[in-house]
Amino acid sequence: MARPKLFSIRRRSVPGAPPGTLIAPREAQAPAVDVLAYAAGEFIEHKGASIDSIREARERHAVTWVNLTGLGDAGLLVEIAEIFGLHHLALEDVLNVHQRPKVEEFDDHLFIVLRMISAPESTEMEQVSIFLGKDYVLSVQESAGDCFDAVRERVRKGKGLIRGRGADYLCYALIDAVVDIFFPALEMLGEKLERLEDTVVGKADAKSIESLHDMKRDFLHLRRTIWPYREMLNELMREENDLLTPDTQVYLRDCYDHTIQLMDIVETYREIASGLVDVYISSVSAKLNEIMKVLTIIATVFMPLSFIASLYGMNFDRSVSAWNMPELGWRLGYFFALGLMAICAIGLIAYFWRNGWLTGNKRIEREERDQI
Amino acid sequence: MARPKLFSIRRRSVPGAPPGTLIAPREAQAPAVDVLAYAAGEFIEHKGASIDSIREARERHAVTWVNLTGLGDAGLLVEIAEIFGLHHLALEDVLNVHQRPKVEEFDDHLFIVLRMISAPESTEMEQVSIFLGKDYVLSVQESAGDCFDAVRERVRKGKGLIRGRGADYLCYALIDAVVDIFFPALEMLGEKLERLEDTVVGKADAKSIESLHDMKRDFLHLRRTIWPYREMLNELMREENDLLTPDTQVYLRDCYDHTIQLMDIVETYREIASGLVDVYISSVSAKLNEIMKVLTIIATVFMPLSFIASLYGMNFDRSVSAWNMPELGWRLGYFFALGLMAICAIGLIAYFWRNGWLTGNKRIEREERDQI
Amino acid sequence: MARPKLFSIRRRSVPGAPPGTLIAPREAQAPAVDVLAYAAGEFIEHKGASIDSIREARERHAVTWVNLTGLGDAGLLVEIAEIFGLHHLALEDVLNVHQRPKVEEFDDHLFIVLRMISAPESTEMEQVSIFLGKDYVLSVQESAGDCFDAVRERVRKGKGLIRGRGADYLCYALIDAVVDIFFPALEMLGEKLERLEDTVVGKADAKSIESLHDMKRDFLHLRRTIWPYREMLNELMREENDLLTPDTQVYLRDCYDHTIQLMDIVETYREIASGLVDVYISSVSAKLNEIMKVLTIIATVFMPLSFIASLYGMNFDRSVSAWNMPELGWRLGYFFALGLMAICAIGLIAYFWRNGWLTGNKRIEREERDQI
Amino acid sequence: MARPKLFSIRRRSVPGAPPGTLIAPREAQAPAVDVLAYAAGEFIEHKGASIDSIREARERHAVTWVNLTGLGDAGLLVEIAEIFGLHHLALEDVLNVHQRPKVEEFDDHLFIVLRMISAPESTEMEQVSIFLGKDYVLSVQESAGDCFDAVRERVRKGKGLIRGRGADYLCYALIDAVVDIFFPALEMLGEKLERLEDTVVGKADAKSIESLHDMKRDFLHLRRTIWPYREMLNELMREENDLLTPDTQVYLRDCYDHTIQLMDIVETYREIASGLVDVYISSVSAKLNEIMKVLTIIATVFMPLSFIASLYGMNFDRSVSAWNMPELGWRLGYFFALGLMAICAIGLIAYFWRNGWLTGNKRIEREERDQI
Amino acid sequence: MARPKLFSIRRRSVPGAPPGTLIAPREAQAPAVDVLAYAAGEFIEHKGASIDSIREARERHAVTWVNLTGLGDAGLLVEIAEIFGLHHLALEDVLNVHQRPKVEEFDDHLFIVLRMISAPESTEMEQVSIFLGKDYVLSVQESAGDCFDAVRERVRKGKGLIRGRGADYLCYALIDAVVDIFFPALEMLGEKLERLEDTVVGKADAKSIESLHDMKRDFLHLRRTIWPYREMLNELMREENDLLTPDTQVYLRDCYDHTIQLMDIVETYREIASGLVDVYISSVSAKLNEIMKVLTIIATVFMPLSFIASLYGMNFDRSVSAWNMPELGWRLGYFFALGLMAICAIGLIAYFWRNGWLTGNKRIEREERDQI
Repeated sequence: MARPKLFSIRRRSVPGAPPGTLIAPREAQAPAVDVLAYAAGEFIEHKGASIDSIREARERHAVTWVNLTGLGDAGLLVEIAEIFGLHHLALEDVLNVHQRPKVEEFDDHLFIVLRMISAPESTEMEQVSIFLGKDYVLSVQESAGDCFDAVRERVRKGKGLIRGRGADYLCYALIDAVVDIFFPALEMLGEKLERLEDTVVGKADAKSIESLHDMKRDFLHLRRTIWPYREMLNELMREENDLLTPDTQVYLRDCYDHTIQLMDIVETYREIASGLVDVYISSVSAKLNEIMKVLTIIATVFMPLSFIASLYGMNFDRSVSAWNMPELGWRLGYFFALGLMAICAIGLIAYFWRNGWLTGNKRIEREERDQI
Repeated sequence: MARPKLFSIRRRSVPGAPPGTLIAPREAQAPAVDVLAYAAGEFIEHKGASIDSIREARERHAVTWVNLTGLGDAGLLVEIAEIFGLHHLALEDVLNVHQRPKVEEFDDHLFIVLRMISAPESTEMEQVSIFLGKDYVLSVQESAGDCFDAVRERVRKGKGLIRGRGADYLCYALIDAVVDIFFPALEMLGEKLERLEDTVVGKADAKSIESLHDMKRDFLHLRRTIWPYREMLNELMREENDLLTPDTQVYLRDCYDHTIQLMDIVETYREIASGLVDVYISSVSAKLNEIMKVLTIIATVFMPLSFIASLYGMNFDRSVSAWNMPELGWRLGYFFALGLMAICAIGLIAYFWRNGWLTGNKRIEREERDQI
Repeated sequence: MARPKLFSIRRRSVPGAPPGTLIAPREAQAPAVDVLAYAAGEFIEHKGASIDSIREARERHAVTWVNLTGLGDAGLLVEIAEIFGLHHLALEDVLNVHQRPKVEEFDDHLFIVLRMISAPESTEMEQVSIFLGKDYVLSVQESAGDCFDAVRERVRKGKGLIRGRGADYLCYALIDAVVDIFFPALEMLGEKLERLEDTVVGKADAKSIESLHDMKRDFLHLRRTIWPYREMLNELMREENDLLTPDTQVYLRDCYDHTIQLMDIVETYREIASGLVDVYISSVSAKLNEIMKVLTIIATVFMPLSFIASLYGMNFDRSVSAWNMPELGWRLGYFFALGLMAICAIGLIAYFWRNGWLTGNKRIEREERDQI
Repeated sequence: MARPKLFSIRRRSVPGAPPGTLIAPREAQAPAVDVLAYAAGEFIEHKGASIDSIREARERHAVTWVNLTGLGDAGLLVEIAEIFGLHHLALEDVLNVHQRPKVEEFDDHLFIVLRMISAPESTEMEQVSIFLGKDYVLSVQESAGDCFDAVRERVRKGKGLIRGRGADYLCYALIDAVVDIFFPALEMLGEKLERLEDTVVGKADAKSIESLHDMKRDFLHLRRTIWPYREMLNELMREENDLLTPDTQVYLRDCYDHTIQLMDIVETYREIASGLVDVYISSVSAKLNEIMKVLTIIATVFMPLSFIASLYGMNFDRSVSAWNMPELGWRLGYFFALGLMAICAIGLIAYFWRNGWLTGNKRIEREERDQI
Repeated sequence: MARPKLFSIRRRSVPGAPPGTLIAPREAQAPAVDVLAYAAGEFIEHKGASIDSIREARERHAVTWVNLTGLGDAGLLVEIAEIFGLHHLALEDVLNVHQRPKVEEFDDHLFIVLRMISAPESTEMEQVSIFLGKDYVLSVQESAGDCFDAVRERVRKGKGLIRGRGADYLCYALIDAVVDIFFPALEMLGEKLERLEDTVVGKADAKSIESLHDMKRDFLHLRRTIWPYREMLNELMREENDLLTPDTQVYLRDCYDHTIQLMDIVETYREIASGLVDVYISSVSAKLNEIMKVLTIIATVFMPLSFIASLYGMNFDRSVSAWNMPELGWRLGYFFALGLMAICAIGLIAYFWRNGWLTGNKRIEREERDQI
């Protein structure tokens, strides 16, 4: 099973290169630009929009949302950045796609980095960079496929409040969508964890511990991703500038609550997974005890029996003396030997019985279950 | 044994849906509305009250307590909310029943989320949402059955201070009842833990570790629930608005002390449970040692005996040479062999005795107990 | 061995009962009131004092110390409380005897809750509630027997500064006595821990792990008790009202230092105890290795020998063919077989020697001790 | 494998020696001084520069960067320090090369201590001390070879902003280079960790645990080094003096983000490594179980067989009585014995089969993999 | 090996005794007073000085350093304290020699408690109490032998700045000496730890775990001692009174850095030691696996062989029927049996070989080392 790489480490072409150098990441997708511009009563949508159509949309509509998918063309990004007057340090962070979630304030725009689960029910992430200005939102994604379709639909159909509000509300809606998409991923991991709980207790095979280790990696990964969201949202909630209205900040508090809930879940899962490691080790030990009991019982019962049999297999010369193995000449010598063996065997089995070695674990467990 | 689900994860119909969408949770109970309105000298009570009777009660009485049980009808909730002018974001949290305990301040009301133990001596939880206004308390529960009967009785009988005080005191009384109901649940878990302590040390079977794991899950669950209570109560105690009188805030401090005590107990139980895992693993190992001692003693004693017996079972031809197994022809050869075996056995048993393998654990333990 | 109950959980008669309900705890002792009143040059003492004599003492003397032992009569407590005008919420905490150490400020008195080791060299606790007013101290204990005798003696004999100072200094003296009494209890636990250190390393029997677990419980219990003392003393040191003089606050800083020292000791003991669990598990494993070595050596040496003996015990018919077990007919066949066995045994023993299995652990340990 | 020393401990010649004593560390390299001075349109470079050329460069150029490699000559350091008026306590820290990263503010210069990875893909560190003044940067390294070549190149070629900015920007560029060089080191450790993950699960030999221990040491070492960087950069970002322009402080925030990312990675790696220890211990136990199963199966099957064989090897005298081992005289006695053995063997094997001891782990694992 | 006592617990004669009671500790050394007084150009030194000579020195010289060694005479301490007007609570702390490092401010003097390593390369501690006034330093030690000789020498020879500065600089010099003396102790422990690292991995005997436990105790002890130094130095650095000049506070920052470095080292050592416990347990388990493999291989190979030999040792009567053990009458029956045995043995050995049981661990390890 291929384990996901935990860290793709940020790297400029050469350590020591000047900051602000814009180089498209290797293996980046070809870019595609979509524009969705709207005001209270109307909206337009361009798929595969040109630079000019962005400018035009911005002039004619209250809010312009430019969505750039694919980082393959650093030049295109620079062109779009020029329209909105974005800071070049932020652009570098857009292209170095392993940033932690954060918010940075520039003169007339906010720069927000998010990490988004890239496929439903997976823990693979991609970076989403959002620029929020007075009348525009620019979102940049690494690859096609996102969780923004419901937001687009709300804009198109004019559902909810979205069309009547400003760019900051759109920005909130995008952040909210990215945060919400963590819940199904956690739900899936939770179910996997519960299946593991059953497996570990019942079977305790070598595969379980490997699965546990992989889950703990996933939780580490999620915690590392979600943790900075709190800080980021906290900052946004307290931001005092005219890009974010107090109204929208109330909604961001809702978002903040969700990240706290996410952290809660991740932390609880991690502790359960850690506890399972102990359960696993205990189960393996308990199994070993059972195996050793079987061995010990068999060996302990048969060793004396075999010894007695060997004893009467000795070849001492009975003709030399009456003291040499007289039992062999007894009328019931054979039954005497068999009886000796039976006594030995029964005695040992009784001993094990009294010590509770023979009562299968199942019966004891049942009793305890009733008791507890 | 069915393990309780740790997290039922909050979910809007579609991630990305507009906030404030009100959808009754699946499997929600049909709603029932009770009204209890009172002032210093009088009170009225309506079971199965109508929207109008709520309005009427509010007009005529100093304090109106509306209790809604069952979330099956989102429309009814909206109607009640309109009477009191509640915020729609709060309503969404009422219906998404997996919130953490928290308090949110709106213009003229506070919104408080609690988690309540839903049955005595269990760790199942349900959400209780409370709206506190100047002259009303609206409490919303998931299902029938709660811990508010004593509060109702106090209102009906005019016991204590409750009728002479405002809505904030009623709100305190409800929070206090929800916090207090955690104590019997913890008491039950504490007794279960003490029973486990005895079992683990004495028997160390596979069932114990599973019970321990389940208890640790319960403690995690309780900690996760109780922890945010502290923050919430702290906020209420410091709240500076005219909804909460300083007098009531003194009582909330009492409540706050109880949550700290609850956290103390939960944390201590968790540490004891963690310690028990070590005790369990140690016990299993100690038991293995005992099993292996039995095996080793038996094997070590009987292997040389069997060897000697086999030795004199060899068929070397004594007629060929006097050097071939002369012992077989000795007058007392048989007794010589038996003597050899006896010496071996006694020597080995003496060796084990000297090394303390044969002195049963019980005697040593008794000595140590006296010593320590 | 009876384990002490960790938590007797606070409980009003019925969860939801009105706050301030005063009910004597079950199994409470019958009350006894002692009064000790003094000023710089004089003092009086009443054992089994009446309500009136308390009033009188308060009028005539600079400082009145009322000590109530036994909570069996809630009415008596209320009567005394009325003399001093104490708050009813505090009285409830006096009777619910499982409070954490804390201080609460009321209009003209402070309410201080302490937990006191109830018998020398034990870890059983009882609650001591102290009310400090301008000219009085009221202390309430659960049961007879306390650590205040030295304070009483100082008052009676006029030793130290106590008679020349106010009620706040008396209050300090009582807190100091309660804090100091933890030291012998910890000293006793420390000695027990050191004895366990020797036992665990040397013997590693099942009893040790149980003792360790019980000690860890004791440390948890002590930590839980001592921890809130810090907060309480900190609050008292910073309290800015006319009940506590700055002079007395300097003495409280001394007290505060002692609680920090106590926490230090408890935490260190806990970490040592936790480390001992690892030592124990390691010792058990090491012992198992030793047992298995004995078994393996014996089995490995005797199995080939027994095989050879069995081999020459086969009954192939030498009369049929010269190839059937010709060794049996050799002149020195028997010695050949014995020699074969000797070679086998010596070879295997040499192998074990070379691998260090036979060199007893003691010698190696001695070498290492010299080395390290 | 030589483990790197974790701590070379700071030591003045004699504890108690006066502070500010300047003694070159033992085994220090011979010093070499390079000067690189520049302004917007020009630059000069001296390798092996003299004291005079430093003075001259400082007079003629906007920014002078003096780089001293090798601490072998304390006198030379003092001479250079005099040019710039550096504080003698700082000089002592330059020579005591085991400082933690830190920044200290003096009247007209900042003193910054960094720890630099001294060779690519290693975790060996050396100390780099940087003095930042209005118009100069003095950097002092322990040994030849550094990560500043890219910075030098940028100055020489006038790439990026560096020539147009002041000494503070150069200082930032150096810090940035030192921080960036940690990334490849971590990348290498990450790959090593992933290789270990595969080894531990698959083989679990004694070598793995040693490698794990060494990796954990490396992570401890890195954490200890990177942790103080955060504090240092934080201080630089908030520093309010005219040595650092706000512009440069924006760039330092970028640097600060990188150290947080580094800490994130190190902490995650540490937790994974800790988890691997559990996986290792589990694997060893699981392997033991497998070994013991083989032993138990073999012993349990063959012991009864051998017993039966021994039984019919007994020499009871059939001529004395018909009851002495009549089986030996049966026509099909031999087949009867063989049949008895076969029944025993088949019965036991069936028992093991039913208990799942014989189904190889591989099949079970495969099933579970599908299931999970 | 005698383990050092971790805690000698502070104790007044009787708990509850009045504060400020001065009783010399049991087993205290007889006191010896040394005076060293100096100003910029001169100094005098009295060994075994009298009370009068202290007074005289104080009058005539800028700075007077009184060093009292041995606490055997509480009266002498009181006499000296009267000269300088010291607070009696501080004197009590001087005699109760188990204080944590701390600083306390009194009207015209500071009281500083230090803990000093009492012998080079040991972890035994003694308490050093320092009083700092405007023109004097009084240091009180438990026993002869200290780390102040270098400071004395600097005063006598006028080395460094010491003679030209005030009493606060002398006080700094003493604190610095006490802090610096921890470094060699840690260096020694570090070397011991590295030796243990080699032992644990290679041998894993019972002695190692005991040594590890003792080291962890030492680290706990050191951490407990060094930790409060940070707080103490922090307080001294911020103290705003005329006893400490800002100049000296700069030097104290240097001291503070050293304590942070000490804590760093102690914490890292502790984590390494904790990691070694895991390594130890793993090694013991791995060793057990190896032992069990030997046993299993031997038993598994010889049990079938012995069975075959026993089989042909049976005494079925060949004269009764041709079906009774016809092999015994075959011409090559013996070789047939030997062949059967050889096939069994070779088959089993091949099985073990294929499963990697026979390839010594060394070869596998070597391969992995190359790989990793």
